[in-house]
Amino acid sequence: MHKNRQWQLARRPVGMPVADDFRWHESDVPELQPGEILVRHRLLSLDPYMRGRMNDTRSYAKPVGIGDPMVGAAIGEVVESRDPSFAAGERVMTGSVLPSGGWQDFSISTAASLRKLPPDSVEESAHFGPLGMTGFTAWAGLMKIGLPKAGETVVVGAATGAVGSMVGQFAKRAGCRTVAIAGGAEKCAYAVSELGYDAAVDHRDADLAGKLAAACPSGIDVYFENIGGVVLEAVRPLLNDFARIPVCGLIAHYNDRTGSEHDARLAPFLRDVLFRRLTYRGFIVSDFAADRPEFEAYVRPLVAAGELVWRTDVVDGLENAPEAFIGLLNGRNFGKLLVRIA
Amino acid sequence: MHKNRQWQLARRPVGMPVADDFRWHESDVPELQPGEILVRHRLLSLDPYMRGRMNDTRSYAKPVGIGDPMVGAAIGEVVESRDPSFAAGERVMTGSVLPSGGWQDFSISTAASLRKLPPDSVEESAHFGPLGMTGFTAWAGLMKIGLPKAGETVVVGAATGAVGSMVGQFAKRAGCRTVAIAGGAEKCAYAVSELGYDAAVDHRDADLAGKLAAACPSGIDVYFENIGGVVLEAVRPLLNDFARIPVCGLIAHYNDRTGSEHDARLAPFLRDVLFRRLTYRGFIVSDFAADRPEFEAYVRPLVAAGELVWRTDVVDGLENAPEAFIGLLNGRNFGKLLVRIA
Repeated sequence: MHKNRQWQLARRPVGMPVADDFRWHESDVPELQPGEILVRHRLLSLDPYMRGRMNDTRSYAKPVGIGDPMVGAAIGEVVESRDPSFAAGERVMTGSVLPSGGWQDFSISTAASLRKLPPDSVEESAHFGPLGMTGFTAWAGLMKIGLPKAGETVVVGAATGAVGSMVGQFAKRAGCRTVAIAGGAEKCAYAVSELGYDAAVDHRDADLAGKLAAACPSGIDVYFENIGGVVLEAVRPLLNDFARIPVCGLIAHYNDRTGSEHDARLAPFLRDVLFRRLTYRGFIVSDFAADRPEFEAYVRPLVAAGELVWRTDVVDGLENAPEAFIGLLNGRNFGKLLVRIA
Repeated sequence: MHKNRQWQLARRPVGMPVADDFRWHESDVPELQPGEILVRHRLLSLDPYMRGRMNDTRSYAKPVGIGDPMVGAAIGEVVESRDPSFAAGERVMTGSVLPSGGWQDFSISTAASLRKLPPDSVEESAHFGPLGMTGFTAWAGLMKIGLPKAGETVVVGAATGAVGSMVGQFAKRAGCRTVAIAGGAEKCAYAVSELGYDAAVDHRDADLAGKLAAACPSGIDVYFENIGGVVLEAVRPLLNDFARIPVCGLIAHYNDRTGSEHDARLAPFLRDVLFRRLTYRGFIVSDFAADRPEFEAYVRPLVAAGELVWRTDVVDGLENAPEAFIGLLNGRNFGKLLVRIA
C-alpha cells in the first residue's frame, strides 16, 4: 500500500494566490482497476497556465475543482501496471495530456495520457524544455502563427522563461533580430549572453517604452505575447504593418481582480488592429497536436547537437510547490521551474 | 477652360464631423501635363473609411491635408487625355487607387490610378457594389480571413451596408447560417427578406446581447467586424473557440474623442483571445490586390446571373456631400451611398 501526498485546491484565489488557497492532503493510493497504470512522480513541472485552472471561468480546459489535486505534468516511473503496454520501472511523462499527473507523489493514468521516455542520452530536463510542452508551444506559436521571415524583428515577452527562451533561439535560427523583454538585470544579461538575443530590455525599467523603441529601430514584426499589461502597451506603438502577435500567455492578467484590472482601453487597441492590419491569434499547444512530428524533426537534431540552451530552476520537495508557484507568478524563478519530489 | 468645384478639408473634426469641417472651393482646372488624364466625375462614392483620413493619426493611408480635397472613388468620363492609352469619352473609375478622384467635379490622374469601365450590360451601380471596392472588401475579409465553413454561423456588423450586404450573401453561398446586425426595423426586415440573412438583430435594441444570443444558438464562428463598441461587446460572449474576426471597420470608434472613448477594457478582451484561441486580423482591401482575379472569377458570374442583391442610396448634387457623409456615419443611409454630381 502506497501513501500519496498531494496539494489540492482549497479555494479559488482572489488575485494573486496565497498559501491558504492550497490544501495538503494525504491518503492511501487505491487499488488499480484493469487498464490503469500507477506512476510515482519524481519531477513536477510548474507553469503559469495553472493559475487559469484555479479560476472557475470559461477557458480551454476544465477548471480544477475545489478539493481536487492541482494539475501538472510530471516525469516519473511506472510502479505498477494493469495495462500490458506499460511495465513497472518504465520512465514516463504524465499530465501533459490531462487528466493525470498533478501536484502529488502518485497518479493513476490510462495509457492514452502517458508518454514513454525511453532511456537516451538527452539530459532529463530537456523533456520539460526544448523537447517538452514548452518547446512545442514556442515552436508552434512562433512558426505557425508568428511566421517569422529572415531580417524581421521578433520581440519575446518573458524572454528567459521556459517558453520564451525557446522562442528567442528559434527566431534567431530563422534569421531574425531578436529582442528579449525580461525582469531584472540578471535575466537581461543572460538573455543576450546565453540565449543569443540581440538585445534585452528590462520590463521594470521606468522607460520601458523608450528602451524598447531603441532596441527595435525597424519596429516589431512578431511579438510573442506571454505577458499583456504594460509590456503590451510598450510593444503596441512599435508594431509594424502586418505584424503577427501569437497570444500564448498573459501572465500580467492572470491575477486580475474584477475592478482592479489593467485599465488599458479596447478601442485604441482595435483601431491599431485595423489600421496596421495586425493579427492577434490566441493558441494553446494542443491545437497543434497534428504538427508534433514536424516539431520533433526540427528540435531533436538541435538538442542532440547541443545547439539549444535551456535552464532549469529546481525546487526541492513537494511541500514547497505552492510557494514556488507563487514565485513563478511573480517572476522570481529563473529558468523552467521544476519541483523535485523526494 | 473647366471650372472645378470641390470640398476641401477645412479643419480636423473633433468627434463627429460637422459642416464647418468642410470648405467649398472653386478654381480653374489647370492645363494637363504630358501623361495626365482629366476626368469629369459623375458618381462619387462616400464610405466610412473617409472619416479616418480626416484625422492626422497613423493609419494605412496618408491623412487628407488641411485645404486638400476630400478623397474618394468616382465614376466619370475622360474629358481630355495626354496619355495615349486613354481617350476622351471613355468611362473610368478613379480614386479607388489613390491619389485621384475626390469630392469634386474633375480630377487629374495618371493611367495607373484609373480603371476603364468598358460599356457592358451590368448596371452601373454594380461598380460601387459587388464589382467594386466594397464587394472586393467583403470577399477578401470573409473568404481570406474569415474562412467560413458550411454549417458555421457568420455574424455581420453593419449588415445592410455596402460591404456587409455582400458579406451576408457570400457567407450564405458558402453554406453558413448568417445573422445580420443592423440599425432599425426597416433595415432588419430588408436584411432577411432581400439579402437572405437567416436572422437579423437591431443594434439599437435594449436587449441586443439577448437577441443576438437567441439568433446564434450554436455560437459565432466568424464575426465580420465593421462596428466595434457595444456591438462587439454583444458578440464577444458568443464567439466559439477558434472564431475568426476579420476587422474591416470600426465605425463606432471613428469619432471617438480622447477621454470619451468606449470604455471597454483591453484585459478581458485579451483573455478571450487566448482562452478561446480567437483570431483578430485587421485588413484593407488593397492588401489583397493579388487576389483580385480570383475575386472577379467568383463575383462576375453572380452579377451576370442576377444572383446578388445590392441597393444604392443616391444623393443629388456635390454640394450635399458633407451632409450625406455625416448621415452615413450616423447610419442614416440605406444602401451604398453615392453622390450624383450634376
